[in-house]
Amino acid sequence: MGKTNKILDETLHNTDDMHEDDCLFCKIAQGKLPSKKIYEDEDVLAFMDIRPVNPGHTLIIPKQHHRSFLEMPKHSIEKIFTTAQDITKAIIEGVGAEGVNIGMNIEKAAGQVVFHAHLHIMPRFSNDGHRLWDGKPYQDGQAEEIHKRITDKLKKKQ
Amino acid sequence: MGKTNKILDETLHNTDDMHEDDCLFCKIAQGKLPSKKIYEDEDVLAFMDIRPVNPGHTLIIPKQHHRSFLEMPKHSIEKIFTTAQDITKAIIEGVGAEGVNIGMNIEKAAGQVVFHAHLHIMPRFSNDGHRLWDGKPYQDGQAEEIHKRITDKLKKKQ
Repeated sequence: MGKTNKILDETLHNTDDMHEDDCLFCKIAQGKLPSKKIYEDEDVLAFMDIRPVNPGHTLIIPKQHHRSFLEMPKHSIEKIFTTAQDITKAIIEGVGAEGVNIGMNIEKAAGQVVFHAHLHIMPRFSNDGHRLWDGKPYQDGQAEEIHKRITDKLKKKQ
Repeated sequence: MGKTNKILDETLHNTDDMHEDDCLFCKIAQGKLPSKKIYEDEDVLAFMDIRPVNPGHTLIIPKQHHRSFLEMPKHSIEKIFTTAQDITKAIIEGVGAEGVNIGMNIEKAAGQVVFHAHLHIMPRFSNDGHRLWDGKPYQDGQAEEIHKRITDKLKKKQ
């Protein structure tokens, strides 16, 4: 197995290693730990992040345990993100936000801390001091090389 | 109309103001501007960001014009995010990423620059220097107040 497949392989095969008993967000979904619930149905739970970027910062999780976005079945992805739209609108109105970032962090290198897939919905305000990323242009020829590598991998999946 | 509804109202009613002729990403979707395409079908297009956080940073857009995530029909949300999962896996393998951030920025205050909905897929590496947000705890009573405001708005939508 090449180095490039390491993370993908780990995430795809370690799903069963974390049982519900060990998972903070499973406990919240099961009501074993308290949370400030924003929305709940049979599939998903939305609750307030306790360390918000701005007040109203909310997490949406599938109730079923999946390590990250990579492991979620398609129907769960559909449910989380369509539900997120309604919740995002309620957050905008509720806190008077001027914008919102929605996002998922996949694996530790990307800032994932709890290994139960969760979508951040972060209300934003002009000049709230929260910085996004800094992009930087590709070097000559680098974009072409990277493009080939990714599309080759994608073709193998189709 | 209260201040809190201003952004939501603007985004929900200004969709028709931007015609395809004015939109950078519509031009890319129509092939009028070049892009390094990662994936394309009748509904969505994925192409490489020209100012990547890390090499392989990719955008996925609905071909139909929607200003942001807030205006996307449910079927388009489902398509974008399920397609994103396959593309994310190809990017991880293609560039050997150790993690990925996926996210959408909604409105200028949240860093949206092109007002055609797009999902960022950003490969990440340990110690790549890209910082995420800093959370900060709620003050006493603040979380309860914000919780009430958001859930009240959500109830009105249901």
